Amino acid sequence: MNTIGKLYRLTTFGESHGEAIGGIIDGVPSGIELDFEQIQDELDRRKPGQSKIVTQRKESDTVKFLSGILDGKTTGTSIGFLIPNENQRSKDYEHIEEVYRPSHADFTYSKKYGIRDVRGGGRTSARETANWVVAGAIAKQIIPNIKINAYVSSVGDLFLEKPYQALDFSQTDSNIVRCPDAETAEKMIERIQEIRKQGDTIGGTVTCVIQNVPIGLGEPIFDKLHARLGQAMLSINAVKGFEYGSGFCGARMKGSEHNDLFNQDGTTKTNLSGGIQGGISNGMDIYFRVAFKPVATLMKEQETINSEGEMVKMHGKGRHDPCVVPRAVPIVEALAAMTLLDFVLQDASRKI
Amino acid sequence: MNTIGKLYRLTTFGESHGEAIGGIIDGVPSGIELDFEQIQDELDRRKPGQSKIVTQRKESDTVKFLSGILDGKTTGTSIGFLIPNENQRSKDYEHIEEVYRPSHADFTYSKKYGIRDVRGGGRTSARETANWVVAGAIAKQIIPNIKINAYVSSVGDLFLEKPYQALDFSQTDSNIVRCPDAETAEKMIERIQEIRKQGDTIGGTVTCVIQNVPIGLGEPIFDKLHARLGQAMLSINAVKGFEYGSGFCGARMKGSEHNDLFNQDGTTKTNLSGGIQGGISNGMDIYFRVAFKPVATLMKEQETINSEGEMVKMHGKGRHDPCVVPRAVPIVEALAAMTLLDFVLQDASRKI
Amino acid sequence: MNTIGKLYRLTTFGESHGEAIGGIIDGVPSGIELDFEQIQDELDRRKPGQSKIVTQRKESDTVKFLSGILDGKTTGTSIGFLIPNENQRSKDYEHIEEVYRPSHADFTYSKKYGIRDVRGGGRTSARETANWVVAGAIAKQIIPNIKINAYVSSVGDLFLEKPYQALDFSQTDSNIVRCPDAETAEKMIERIQEIRKQGDTIGGTVTCVIQNVPIGLGEPIFDKLHARLGQAMLSINAVKGFEYGSGFCGARMKGSEHNDLFNQDGTTKTNLSGGIQGGISNGMDIYFRVAFKPVATLMKEQETINSEGEMVKMHGKGRHDPCVVPRAVPIVEALAAMTLLDFVLQDASRKI
Amino acid sequence: MNTIGKLYRLTTFGESHGEAIGGIIDGVPSGIELDFEQIQDELDRRKPGQSKIVTQRKESDTVKFLSGILDGKTTGTSIGFLIPNENQRSKDYEHIEEVYRPSHADFTYSKKYGIRDVRGGGRTSARETANWVVAGAIAKQIIPNIKINAYVSSVGDLFLEKPYQALDFSQTDSNIVRCPDAETAEKMIERIQEIRKQGDTIGGTVTCVIQNVPIGLGEPIFDKLHARLGQAMLSINAVKGFEYGSGFCGARMKGSEHNDLFNQDGTTKTNLSGGIQGGISNGMDIYFRVAFKPVATLMKEQETINSEGEMVKMHGKGRHDPCVVPRAVPIVEALAAMTLLDFVLQDASRKI
Repeated sequence: MNTIGKLYRLTTFGESHGEAIGGIIDGVPSGIELDFEQIQDELDRRKPGQSKIVTQRKESDTVKFLSGILDGKTTGTSIGFLIPNENQRSKDYEHIEEVYRPSHADFTYSKKYGIRDVRGGGRTSARETANWVVAGAIAKQIIPNIKINAYVSSVGDLFLEKPYQALDFSQTDSNIVRCPDAETAEKMIERIQEIRKQGDTIGGTVTCVIQNVPIGLGEPIFDKLHARLGQAMLSINAVKGFEYGSGFCGARMKGSEHNDLFNQDGTTKTNLSGGIQGGISNGMDIYFRVAFKPVATLMKEQETINSEGEMVKMHGKGRHDPCVVPRAVPIVEALAAMTLLDFVLQDASRKI
Repeated sequence: MNTIGKLYRLTTFGESHGEAIGGIIDGVPSGIELDFEQIQDELDRRKPGQSKIVTQRKESDTVKFLSGILDGKTTGTSIGFLIPNENQRSKDYEHIEEVYRPSHADFTYSKKYGIRDVRGGGRTSARETANWVVAGAIAKQIIPNIKINAYVSSVGDLFLEKPYQALDFSQTDSNIVRCPDAETAEKMIERIQEIRKQGDTIGGTVTCVIQNVPIGLGEPIFDKLHARLGQAMLSINAVKGFEYGSGFCGARMKGSEHNDLFNQDGTTKTNLSGGIQGGISNGMDIYFRVAFKPVATLMKEQETINSEGEMVKMHGKGRHDPCVVPRAVPIVEALAAMTLLDFVLQDASRKI
Repeated sequence: MNTIGKLYRLTTFGESHGEAIGGIIDGVPSGIELDFEQIQDELDRRKPGQSKIVTQRKESDTVKFLSGILDGKTTGTSIGFLIPNENQRSKDYEHIEEVYRPSHADFTYSKKYGIRDVRGGGRTSARETANWVVAGAIAKQIIPNIKINAYVSSVGDLFLEKPYQALDFSQTDSNIVRCPDAETAEKMIERIQEIRKQGDTIGGTVTCVIQNVPIGLGEPIFDKLHARLGQAMLSINAVKGFEYGSGFCGARMKGSEHNDLFNQDGTTKTNLSGGIQGGISNGMDIYFRVAFKPVATLMKEQETINSEGEMVKMHGKGRHDPCVVPRAVPIVEALAAMTLLDFVLQDASRKI
Repeated sequence: MNTIGKLYRLTTFGESHGEAIGGIIDGVPSGIELDFEQIQDELDRRKPGQSKIVTQRKESDTVKFLSGILDGKTTGTSIGFLIPNENQRSKDYEHIEEVYRPSHADFTYSKKYGIRDVRGGGRTSARETANWVVAGAIAKQIIPNIKINAYVSSVGDLFLEKPYQALDFSQTDSNIVRCPDAETAEKMIERIQEIRKQGDTIGGTVTCVIQNVPIGLGEPIFDKLHARLGQAMLSINAVKGFEYGSGFCGARMKGSEHNDLFNQDGTTKTNLSGGIQGGISNGMDIYFRVAFKPVATLMKEQETINSEGEMVKMHGKGRHDPCVVPRAVPIVEALAAMTLLDFVLQDASRKI
């Protein structure tokens, strides 16, 4: 339940108010020289307080490795790590102690477990995703040839209209919203600031492109590459949808429009398939899109119920994101990297 | 790889041209009286040749149970079953022996395994889904209180505009396209026939509604109820996307529009969440939408390559669906039922 | 529950009285040319009725493959297979319909499942092990370099005193008790015949030697090579114990006696470790011993209880083995082969 | 690989020289009030330095919980915990940096991973078992009705001859060797001291008795209760064998001697079966025996090889146990508790 992956496996724990969150990575090949700065860079891309359009909570999100590494190299044994929690303001949560926030997991956790850890949202806090970023950053280093680039492709109704082929991924982090098109980025940033001023929040989408994928990754029938990518993405807080290749648009098309005709070398002229056929990578670019709903915590008054079933008024406190997609970019990349690596290991196991 | 589920598990085998396909269901509670007619009914909803808008291949798809059942009741041991293949026309596939069909898995299987079973598409054949329907029909009988209804919600650009609350699910099977709105159904049927005449195919979507769900199903962090539903749906041949609740529309909304405010009894006034909060069911209706691309086999000439890397012309033969969504309805329901049951068992394991 | 293995996985079903038992093998590498005669030979070594010292039930135990194989080669997809039940004499079991046989699983299955399939012992029948022999025979063919030889090392108090190094494994099947030492074999056969005449049964042990094992198989911490071998062996009906290397004798020794000193080439002068250090193979021979209790069904009158809790007298009927170890030899080898292959695949997954 | 259990799962990490070892426990039912003193008591039973017959290394082995607990109660989310390493004397290991100690895992780890963490034995250190004791102590508290008692039943050739029914388990911890029979305990202690003076080590056995087990725990075919107990026990460092009920003695018996005849109430007159029939508990006491080889590190000179393949002389340094069984008692109990709880949860999942 708290584990993802089959051969490259991450198991996690942690609530945002405790001393630390953390995880254990199993299945790491031995002898991999780790670039710790790069791991920290990925954490920094996800951390709160990094810009004016994300939550102003300040946390350094520094990872501490406890095992599985010797002289900077992986030893092949499980890697345990911690990310200390620094900025715990439990007081921020006192006002919701007995209150079920609308469109939060307060109600479902209370009913499922009969007990609820309100501070920081307990286990439902998106802080958990910092654990994933660590495991994803390591995965990226194990399969350096596979290029994984995510970016913000929409904020509310503002869409990045250009196809990914027209983008320069090196520009993604050149702006705070992580949209590689400067013009669109500016509009998105403006939009989020406006929404924040209203005490409101807004949804968006992240697109991810995976390039240089070896042919043959993915396993029929229930471990199709896109099905596992989808499950991973749907694990991220606030995600409501996943589509790859032509996605929902593909459902409106005719076969004669949708089929990707082959070139002589086995590549295809178009790529509506999104780099996957029958659940297995075909060597073309994989791309998919993930939909994030708007954050549920508003800096506005809302009516809701408490655990006694009484109607009460509440007003969001604490420091929350007006829009999650800028910080979701490294999370999407991390889960993609872990999933790809899992299939690389799976594939290797068949080659004996 | 050929197994789905954790506590209620289905493992399958089979190619469409062999003697039979089949599966093994593990984790079945004992003492459940099975309604075999109902299982066959579900298979009949999926089988080819059932109407003029689906493939004209004729197969009776009769399931034969080999174990795990005594005097009509489950014994608690694994249920083995077979579905004999009756209508094998290997000749239909001779023309593709050396050819990689566009947007099929021919190329990826060949590259991954170095060997390809061309007859009937081998393991990639959607015939496999008959196995799922068996396991799903049994799952439905184990959790009869949970109501699972899928239906066709679009064919190409033709959308069923009514929300699911306005539909009478008992009408879904009253027409051959399985759209519960008679008027829209008629248009869809007409559209599919037109497409078929063109030798072309068309995509569509299936919507599924799950009602009467107990509060508390789903497991954080990586076994969120919607993530497992998504993975299951993305395992169906031709699926390109999955969304639940507000889905991709939710990504365009503001938090103040999207939040589901509570009633005093814990139900919510709206249900953009789609019955799931934090990965756990909240007792409201669960609904999701699945996107199917158009079938890749066209009754038209297409250019493609063969295994020698030569450009060749091919023309679809055999008997294929012009649109898969009508037959996908029971498949979506089956996977939903298996997933829900899995979580019901998981939840029960926590209540000791 | 009905699945063994992680990367090479066997899932099974079947009761001895149904139409067939069978299984699905997942994780088979593609392109392996199968020797079907060899598979049948292994089944013949296990089958009933093969000699005067085993059960006289006659069954041909012929396996029928339904998928995953094309032109004699594995395709990489799941292999489904059936072994039809031929000789069902349900009448043999009528006398136990309401009776719990001593030291059988009748009582525990009845209590656990509330339903019991008495015919042939239902799912508890050792007939299930024929499924394992199929999967094991295929595993052996995938890792032909690893030599796996089991043999009967004791029957009751009759022990084969020679160490395995002094044995010629090619002689194991030269006699019906499967003890590679002719003299000891003769005594064992005599002993079993004597026991059978008494209407009694007797226990014994099987020793298994695995040679030519690559260094490095096995995974810390909970997938130690010997732990997985132990779990596999303890899954066989009637097994009461497992030991490897020095085993229980090792517990009586001093470290200065027990340590295996190295030769310069990394081999060891002695091998009390049994070819495994820290759960990982060290390249020396692996050997282990499995203890089988005497068969519980006696051709004698015994007092027992029925499902009403009344004391009743019963007398064994049907055709049972007086001693299981001769037929257990191929079963032990099959499980050892499956376990070794699983670790070979696991190891390969780390070498990317 | 570093995970044990299916529904109650422990995943671990850690090397004895790092900052801490630790683990994550998943599948914990919510609302369980934890007794932290009892957890610490179990750790104290395992810790080094507790008496004159165990290693003189001093470590307090204090566990620190990081998540999954609120106000002393489990929340149902994953429990992360650390056990800081206090007494790291890496210098103790300098002398083996390039040396493969006989009958240690130095050689196999080096060959498997190409890298070896020599300090404290790295991941192969028995310090890892402290993690298991934490998870086991929690498991015990979740199933308080099931009584689990292990004790030392032999040291070298000194056997505790009394059957477990004649023992008073409350006396197990009244002496430092953890043998509940005072007279035998004294002899064992004397024996271990004598061995230690010789710079040698000695093996032994631990017996475990599980009482008050509900009928019906265990799952056919590959999750038999005793097979999973066996796998767990074989995961402990230095274990060479496992037997339950009559064990290897049973292999010498006749069926007429071995069968456990029923009393009218479903209990049995004898219990050679060891409380398990067909892999499922029958309500009688479960008992099993675990064989431990002598510790490989001797305080004597031994000849061995280094990583260059040269013969070298080495002399054990550091602080090692002359006999592991006294400290193994709480480890055996912990693994038994985790395994039993796993099956309790599994059984509950079937009762819907």
